[in-house]
Amino acid sequence: MTGAPIALDAMGGDYAPQEAVKGAIRASRDFGIDVVLVGDGPRLKAQLADLGEKESERMRVCHAPEVVSMTDAPSVVIRGKRRSSIRVASNLVKRGEAAAVVSAGNTGATMAAARCEFGLAKGVERPAIAQVFPNRKHGTVVLDLGANVDCKIGYLVQFGVMGSIYASIVFQKRSPKVGLLSIGSEDTKGNEFSRSVLLAMREEPAINFVGNIEGRDVFKGDVDVVVCDGFVGNIVLKITEGVAAMVVGMMQDSLSSNVLSKAGAVLVRPSFRRLKKRMDYAEYGGAILLGVNGVCVICHGGSKARAIRNALKRAYDFAVSDIVEQITEKMEARRMVS
Amino acid sequence: MTGAPIALDAMGGDYAPQEAVKGAIRASRDFGIDVVLVGDGPRLKAQLADLGEKESERMRVCHAPEVVSMTDAPSVVIRGKRRSSIRVASNLVKRGEAAAVVSAGNTGATMAAARCEFGLAKGVERPAIAQVFPNRKHGTVVLDLGANVDCKIGYLVQFGVMGSIYASIVFQKRSPKVGLLSIGSEDTKGNEFSRSVLLAMREEPAINFVGNIEGRDVFKGDVDVVVCDGFVGNIVLKITEGVAAMVVGMMQDSLSSNVLSKAGAVLVRPSFRRLKKRMDYAEYGGAILLGVNGVCVICHGGSKARAIRNALKRAYDFAVSDIVEQITEKMEARRMVS
Repeated sequence: MTGAPIALDAMGGDYAPQEAVKGAIRASRDFGIDVVLVGDGPRLKAQLADLGEKESERMRVCHAPEVVSMTDAPSVVIRGKRRSSIRVASNLVKRGEAAAVVSAGNTGATMAAARCEFGLAKGVERPAIAQVFPNRKHGTVVLDLGANVDCKIGYLVQFGVMGSIYASIVFQKRSPKVGLLSIGSEDTKGNEFSRSVLLAMREEPAINFVGNIEGRDVFKGDVDVVVCDGFVGNIVLKITEGVAAMVVGMMQDSLSSNVLSKAGAVLVRPSFRRLKKRMDYAEYGGAILLGVNGVCVICHGGSKARAIRNALKRAYDFAVSDIVEQITEKMEARRMVS
Repeated sequence: MTGAPIALDAMGGDYAPQEAVKGAIRASRDFGIDVVLVGDGPRLKAQLADLGEKESERMRVCHAPEVVSMTDAPSVVIRGKRRSSIRVASNLVKRGEAAAVVSAGNTGATMAAARCEFGLAKGVERPAIAQVFPNRKHGTVVLDLGANVDCKIGYLVQFGVMGSIYASIVFQKRSPKVGLLSIGSEDTKGNEFSRSVLLAMREEPAINFVGNIEGRDVFKGDVDVVVCDGFVGNIVLKITEGVAAMVVGMMQDSLSSNVLSKAGAVLVRPSFRRLKKRMDYAEYGGAILLGVNGVCVICHGGSKARAIRNALKRAYDFAVSDIVEQITEKMEARRMVS
């Protein structure tokens, strides 16, 4: 697994292919990661040349004639654009020519391509998108962030198991604490669906379940994994981005409001930059699609070179870890028991 | 409506009755608002005396022998503790002896008391909790924040109408923009329930509906009203508080991390304080329960004197406005049409 390069959907995202190619070059330089740039071949080669690079063993170009747009339906990769960059990149992983796929393109299409090429892990009903949210301790894994907008009870229990494995790897923790996102910590709190999920999660032996948690708890760091359905999760993700952007913006307005605070702002700038970095999704290297037989890292559509570089690093780290095998084993074992 | 005092549930909240009484005194001094303190009479009088005040025409004490705790079921105010401070305070409004009720106690019980004493406005199926969220413009009304965890489609349409009336009053805007909280702006985005709500809201003539909005949009200020069910809304509220608290905390850590930034921190302190104030729920004076025949303001359980003072001011402003009448009229008119 370690030798194979990472396949990058170089046509996916708001700033593709420029920022994708730049990010790949940085990942190669900074971490020694080999990348296959998948997309419009001549354009990608020209892009490399513009940046003073050329195609090499460590930075290959793989031509894919089609591109999935942000407005395409996810199913387009299955029935329509089978030669699209995201589908071809995922296929490289399936064929063993790449160790993982990374894309900042259409999230639905990326999931569909990964699911179609990799297949679901045995015992998994639905894959889920997971990401580490910042907090004042090490971070919290939140899932599902949007793969499944209408969920059955069992899906969320499975998200808990997969999220727990993910957290055990990224936080190097033996028995991560798993909580269910609700509107109060008592068992009676929540809606009809969440209360049923709570009961089912209490019965799940594969997780260290702590019960209901509230929105505030995501950022306290008292739990390692927060489970919710994809509709709520996606709203939580975007609310978090929205609040952070607003606070940082207000802080900037505030610091330039008068001479004294302007002077102070110069002194606090390095601290401020560190803070912005901690809050910036680009630092977190994208989200991972859990439950498929391969590593798929999904980046924010607005990803620039730094975010792509970090996502390639994250994909590489997952590819050399045994996260896919662990999920397959545990989910298969659960299936045998039930 | 202007002459009557505001009834304060002086036993509700984590810091009651001390902070409640302090908040009432400040509201009286700062805004000339008359208050009836409802709760354990002797204790409230002692509290007033401790603060160098005594009962007067402008600061009356109304004895209520029972207290609803934070863990009591909401129904306790109906079947069990009928002489509890929140129930007695709401009853004062019903009898015309107070213009509005304010409580930082058990939210469910506060809603139940208001609903039971005031009654639902005609044409309203469910009352909703609404609050103004800060943004870089004037603010955004978000509802429902937790009154209804399991909603029917029609409830959310009604929340849109009531939220629109609320926004037109607080932002002094003729035709506030109403959005439905979802996971993408396109009509196809969302879960099964939210897509059905979207269609129903498009048909509603009483609102200026702009369609789906995303979590990020809440803080951009491009819409005036954001509608969601009470489960999602309560999560959004607490995620927002959690992120803001984390960012402010990280900022403080960051500013005290070295000598230079410490020096800078002294200079930026006033700006920083202004920012914290803008993010602080205590500034917003609580949430309002829309859809009942009276003004009920619900405060955060952790409210201290300043938050109580601001909530009393907000309740006063609503009592002198015609928000209840406007909602009653519009909801009644809708009912006649349908």
